[in-house]
Amino acid sequence: MLPMEKIQFNLPQDRIPLAWYNIAADLPKPMAPPLHPGTLKPLGPDDLAPLFPMSLIEQEVSTEREIEIPDEVRQVYAQWRPSPLYRARRLEKALDTPAHIYYKNEGVSPAGSHKPNTAVPQAFYNKQAGTKRLSTETGAGQWGSSLAMACAFFDMECKVYMVRVSYDQKPYRRALMETYGASVTASPSVETEVGRAILAAHPDSNGSLGIAISEAVEIAAKDPNTKYALGSVLNHVMLHQTVIGLEAIEQMALAGEEPDVIMACTGGGSNFAGLAMPYIGRNLKGLSHARIVAVEPSACPSLTKGQFTYDFGDTGRLTPLVKMHTLGSAFMPPGIHAGGLRYHGMAPLVSHVMDLGLIEATSVQQLDAFAAGIQFARAEGIVPAPESNHAIAGAIYEALEAKREGKPRTILFNLSGHGNFDMQSYINYQAGLLENYDYPAEEIAMALAGLPVIL
Amino acid sequence: MLPMEKIQFNLPQDRIPLAWYNIAADLPKPMAPPLHPGTLKPLGPDDLAPLFPMSLIEQEVSTEREIEIPDEVRQVYAQWRPSPLYRARRLEKALDTPAHIYYKNEGVSPAGSHKPNTAVPQAFYNKQAGTKRLSTETGAGQWGSSLAMACAFFDMECKVYMVRVSYDQKPYRRALMETYGASVTASPSVETEVGRAILAAHPDSNGSLGIAISEAVEIAAKDPNTKYALGSVLNHVMLHQTVIGLEAIEQMALAGEEPDVIMACTGGGSNFAGLAMPYIGRNLKGLSHARIVAVEPSACPSLTKGQFTYDFGDTGRLTPLVKMHTLGSAFMPPGIHAGGLRYHGMAPLVSHVMDLGLIEATSVQQLDAFAAGIQFARAEGIVPAPESNHAIAGAIYEALEAKREGKPRTILFNLSGHGNFDMQSYINYQAGLLENYDYPAEEIAMALAGLPVIL
Repeated sequence: MLPMEKIQFNLPQDRIPLAWYNIAADLPKPMAPPLHPGTLKPLGPDDLAPLFPMSLIEQEVSTEREIEIPDEVRQVYAQWRPSPLYRARRLEKALDTPAHIYYKNEGVSPAGSHKPNTAVPQAFYNKQAGTKRLSTETGAGQWGSSLAMACAFFDMECKVYMVRVSYDQKPYRRALMETYGASVTASPSVETEVGRAILAAHPDSNGSLGIAISEAVEIAAKDPNTKYALGSVLNHVMLHQTVIGLEAIEQMALAGEEPDVIMACTGGGSNFAGLAMPYIGRNLKGLSHARIVAVEPSACPSLTKGQFTYDFGDTGRLTPLVKMHTLGSAFMPPGIHAGGLRYHGMAPLVSHVMDLGLIEATSVQQLDAFAAGIQFARAEGIVPAPESNHAIAGAIYEALEAKREGKPRTILFNLSGHGNFDMQSYINYQAGLLENYDYPAEEIAMALAGLPVIL
Repeated sequence: MLPMEKIQFNLPQDRIPLAWYNIAADLPKPMAPPLHPGTLKPLGPDDLAPLFPMSLIEQEVSTEREIEIPDEVRQVYAQWRPSPLYRARRLEKALDTPAHIYYKNEGVSPAGSHKPNTAVPQAFYNKQAGTKRLSTETGAGQWGSSLAMACAFFDMECKVYMVRVSYDQKPYRRALMETYGASVTASPSVETEVGRAILAAHPDSNGSLGIAISEAVEIAAKDPNTKYALGSVLNHVMLHQTVIGLEAIEQMALAGEEPDVIMACTGGGSNFAGLAMPYIGRNLKGLSHARIVAVEPSACPSLTKGQFTYDFGDTGRLTPLVKMHTLGSAFMPPGIHAGGLRYHGMAPLVSHVMDLGLIEATSVQQLDAFAAGIQFARAEGIVPAPESNHAIAGAIYEALEAKREGKPRTILFNLSGHGNFDMQSYINYQAGLLENYDYPAEEIAMALAGLPVIL
């Protein structure tokens, strides 16, 4: 018997982190505050109270380095955490590269992505605060199904406004949410004032994430038993995702390597932040010197082509203004299949560390992302989510650079989710129906020009 | 911090079994031999040589207790094995039962079911024997996608004949196989004599597993570079699946419990055999006294209502005759959504241990299976394959019996796969479109009456 090559570097259940890592404690410069959309003054905790329980609002503004993970949350995390860290040995061989490629597999969560890392604590804190129902929006469906699952675990109702076009095109994602017991409504709907107004003007509206957010926020604001939950962008969401990076640091130590480059795809920023923030903390302490690279779609390049400025989180300009890398909240990203990356802005925390020079960013075209995903599937067996394909394309690029240079390189990327519910995009890709998108310079310029001027 | 309840009982990579367990060595009575369909005489190795490499034919008839797992196969197994063993604590709480419920999760394989446990060694032995291409049939698609993945890993071509009705209704399963690089053809096809003959007579044929088997066998028999691979029924398939039970025995020891009852769903019998055979071996040695229960669909009840007799493996009567529990090879099972359980017969090995009284069997109606699956999904997060729902229904029944008796009971079942590619069946169930099926007594009697008489 030959000695086996080690494929998985896994931790036992008792190594689930005891606390999330809050990089706010270590930032060389504090983040710019969010502003009230009406007064343009910094937002206070009370402004958020109708939508979120106080425990989450406190996390949103906390500068404590470690925020304890409640026992009840760790107990649910134990269903899939610590998530496995793999060395992609067959992919390395296929690429004939001297690079070592590692990936953290967040697709093992029951809902299939990293999103339950924050859905579970959000549901828990709401349950604790007496919330009976959570409302949210979903586009591609990863977030909606994760929150639906978390609500099932904590015995709460879940109301999901699903963008009309996804509702019609992704019946399986909807079925998943309904299997978990959630109520799913196509947005725009007749259930809200916002929805009725839009339907009156555009009876055939396909909906948008911006509209769905407005509907979910409206019912939360009006019903004292309902709160709202958001799956990305906010600080407390980034915080909850840090379990990814905290585990990865320990797992890479098991593998006996320190990553030279760390990559994750970026849409709203949460899976990237989850892997990156603990490593940025290590870099800041001088414990590591990894390059940390956000990989975004060329069609929606907020970090590489956007402006770092105050903008609204939604198209309808109902949310607070946050300082972020943005393409302008009026920008409508092209219809790429990585639906989770089609967002005009970037999480303020990710934008801030970009502005501070603590991370890099690059962009990948849609066809290159799918080609990378298929190469990965044939080598590793796992069919990745279209979003994750961007991280894989980035990792393959780095591995081929190492080959060109004839030098080793240790690459770590985040496989944010599996693609089992996204097979239509693989069908379309393999049928030659997908295309690349040029940088939509003019549209972005127009959207940016329309932003309010914050002095 | 409260102590955590243990959810997963996992083994490190080096605990992947070194050998498969061959129960033939321990059977109190040998199995009846397979017969040549023409001569009705016992089959020799040469009869199988056109279809399978000699190493697999040797395993088919071996009586060695332990058959070493090749290093190359264990190395691929390491991508997802040892698979996790869970304690279903939230399900226990939902049922308010004193029973302890454990499940082995085979859905963590990249293809989503237990099928890669045999697809990988079959591809490996074929590669070793110089096979360039493997042909097979698939109905629901679990097997086809597993073999497609295994062929991608060992750089072989893969040709899948997919039953026409599944080909049309399950485009995502087909897309998965194509993503792995397989060539997928709707069956009946114009590529084979069998297919052309059927299409000439029935141009709109929906196909059947029997027809697809005939097509896959035909191209393997005619092309020296192509061999055939079967995903269930045969002894070597049962053998490869024993990694499930071998790991489970070690994991239950970690949990500090010995199962009182062990359950798995049965169609062709492979996931059941995988969990059951190592435990039957333990029972035979007096090391355990577990009840071992096969759970089959009421609509296709080969073990509970079939006859233990010689029958053909396919509808077209081209395969050898094997002694098994059968509903008659002419029996066409009702269109239940657990497509992997729609088979007229039962693996000869599983039939044999049933005949010897070493296992029990029970049956579950379709609606009860889906109700159990949804209860499981809301408690555990994982949406099970419709096939696996039968095992879950069996486990829930046992847990409620324990509650009624007010006594503890340790239940272990096999979660053979996830349902991510089967959401249409959940949509149909939740829309009230599915129904139960009465035991199709007359049809089965007719099909059984038509069997050849073997003296």
